[in-house]
Amino acid sequence: MRACVFRGGQLAIVDVPEPRPEPGQVLVRTLACGICGTDLHFLKHSETIARLNDEIVPTLGPAAIGSPHVDLSRDVFMGHEFCAEVLEVGADTSGPRPGTRVVSVPVVLSSAGVHRLAYNNDYPCGYAERFLLSSDLLVEVPNGLEPKLAALTEPLAVGVHAVAKSGFRPGDTAIVLGCGPVGLAVIASLVTAGAETVVATDFSAARRSLAMAMGATSVVDPNSEHVIDVWRREAHDRPLVIFEAVGVRGMIQHILAVVPIGTRVVVVGVCMEPDTITPFYGIAKELSIQFAFAYTLEEFADSLKSIADGHVDVTPMITGTVDLDGMPSAFEALAQPDHHCKILVEPSGTDRQ
Amino acid sequence: MRACVFRGGQLAIVDVPEPRPEPGQVLVRTLACGICGTDLHFLKHSETIARLNDEIVPTLGPAAIGSPHVDLSRDVFMGHEFCAEVLEVGADTSGPRPGTRVVSVPVVLSSAGVHRLAYNNDYPCGYAERFLLSSDLLVEVPNGLEPKLAALTEPLAVGVHAVAKSGFRPGDTAIVLGCGPVGLAVIASLVTAGAETVVATDFSAARRSLAMAMGATSVVDPNSEHVIDVWRREAHDRPLVIFEAVGVRGMIQHILAVVPIGTRVVVVGVCMEPDTITPFYGIAKELSIQFAFAYTLEEFADSLKSIADGHVDVTPMITGTVDLDGMPSAFEALAQPDHHCKILVEPSGTDRQ
Repeated sequence: MRACVFRGGQLAIVDVPEPRPEPGQVLVRTLACGICGTDLHFLKHSETIARLNDEIVPTLGPAAIGSPHVDLSRDVFMGHEFCAEVLEVGADTSGPRPGTRVVSVPVVLSSAGVHRLAYNNDYPCGYAERFLLSSDLLVEVPNGLEPKLAALTEPLAVGVHAVAKSGFRPGDTAIVLGCGPVGLAVIASLVTAGAETVVATDFSAARRSLAMAMGATSVVDPNSEHVIDVWRREAHDRPLVIFEAVGVRGMIQHILAVVPIGTRVVVVGVCMEPDTITPFYGIAKELSIQFAFAYTLEEFADSLKSIADGHVDVTPMITGTVDLDGMPSAFEALAQPDHHCKILVEPSGTDRQ
Repeated sequence: MRACVFRGGQLAIVDVPEPRPEPGQVLVRTLACGICGTDLHFLKHSETIARLNDEIVPTLGPAAIGSPHVDLSRDVFMGHEFCAEVLEVGADTSGPRPGTRVVSVPVVLSSAGVHRLAYNNDYPCGYAERFLLSSDLLVEVPNGLEPKLAALTEPLAVGVHAVAKSGFRPGDTAIVLGCGPVGLAVIASLVTAGAETVVATDFSAARRSLAMAMGATSVVDPNSEHVIDVWRREAHDRPLVIFEAVGVRGMIQHILAVVPIGTRVVVVGVCMEPDTITPFYGIAKELSIQFAFAYTLEEFADSLKSIADGHVDVTPMITGTVDLDGMPSAFEALAQPDHHCKILVEPSGTDRQ
């Protein structure tokens, strides 16, 4: 079968062995899979990410899932924002039958352990025509929901989780820095959580429009206005939670420098490089920084439900669709944030069948 | 009257005008005042601290207390860990009468506003023979408690507050990096909060002994053992809260690198210089960093009560006493952590009267 993999520092469309489901697993075909910003990061910083992963693995403790060691000399599979259709069910396996549309947290269990469905050498993911999932982790897509929309479950769950980790309470106000898919998911989740003030910033006019579509109460072009000034006018100094959804050097320090006393900072953008902060700012203002990563199984299922029930309309986030052969150019296009937000891959052009 | 001030980059024992209490204020004489690590920082980094203060003041918002602008070309008053005796009460002022021993949060209210009793140009603090306090903020020292012990109320409150901000829960375990007065106060507060596992580290054997005296369940010399190994043996991977009470560059990054998934980091040591972190560690392990500063009025009063009731014995922390003339050499001595922990100033040798 065909898959888009990371090989020798770039994307390649290659033939890989057909996976066979073990007991407890199902073979699925990919209906739609989103391209994640982390995948773009990986393409650019694969050696750094592989090294950082190896550094932290021995420190993680028993709460860690699987071993994220990545061998960059071998093909690396990616694609963790998928909607798929069950094709074949492993022996002695209950759960959804062939033909069922499903989503799942990007993890597969095997007799050998737990494997992340992203940045691994052995388990094809959503950038392949077909791959394996664990029957116990499947969440059925409610009848009628388009696979492209269901594929947004994963990025929306990232936002839901970041807002949950922030401890957002009624009366709190929010700033979201960066209106890429993660920032937009945070905005949508803040609205769901009842936020009345959500000020969003992005240099891109297109992304600021998307932020309004997702429910931001105002948007700021950092070139023309200071986000704190806009927030002060709207929030009247109510408690502030600020979300860093950009993931580049200097953002955390910028936040520590400009926010008021007692602000809670949630870092959901992934900066891969060393970064400099002035701890004195954090101390003198008694700030907190919560790093947010992934989501719980429940948050994931809730995100699908929010989309299916129409509570969160992710349609505006989808700005393009490609097949496997179109992936390298999709990655290039996503480096231009003014043109695209979320591009989906349909490895077999399946939603037109 | 005499006071030890910061003048021209160093400590000087000088004559300053006698303060006069306004309505709402009392004049007190200093019985004992602790030398704080932040005072040592100030002596070394006064320009940086003054600049950082000026940078953050416009950003603080309405929750900020007073204006911390410091004019380094004028004398700067210090000394915020004091026990004092009321000498004279301002007009129309209720509250403790002359002769009463008191402590107070280091703030004084005047008709001109709120003033911090530390690093200011206009209000003498605990390194002066006499100074002004606000009657409404006084906490009476229970009869019989030595002024030297009551003067430890403030540093103990810093520990109480840091533990409160950490959200420490039954079943959590703790690591305390650094066993200076702040680290020791954190250890004592963790014990009060019911912590069953408190692993403390310091390069100084003397400070490790103090940590055991304050209730640490084990101590680690970072030159001989890795604190995480010791913690693993004791804590069996129960949730970890780690307190950074050293305040030098590299400590936060060290913590992010070595702790397990989900660890809560509390930064209570004050690093004045820019510092480098790898946000990826924070993200991949979903860590949180809570900066902790000062304490609430209630935590301050509770700290005095803990000392007075004998729940926390701060006696081992006191390693020296000097008069005003001895202050410059006391500051030098405190730079040698193996010899001293907390040195108290008795500006009039008052506890021998």
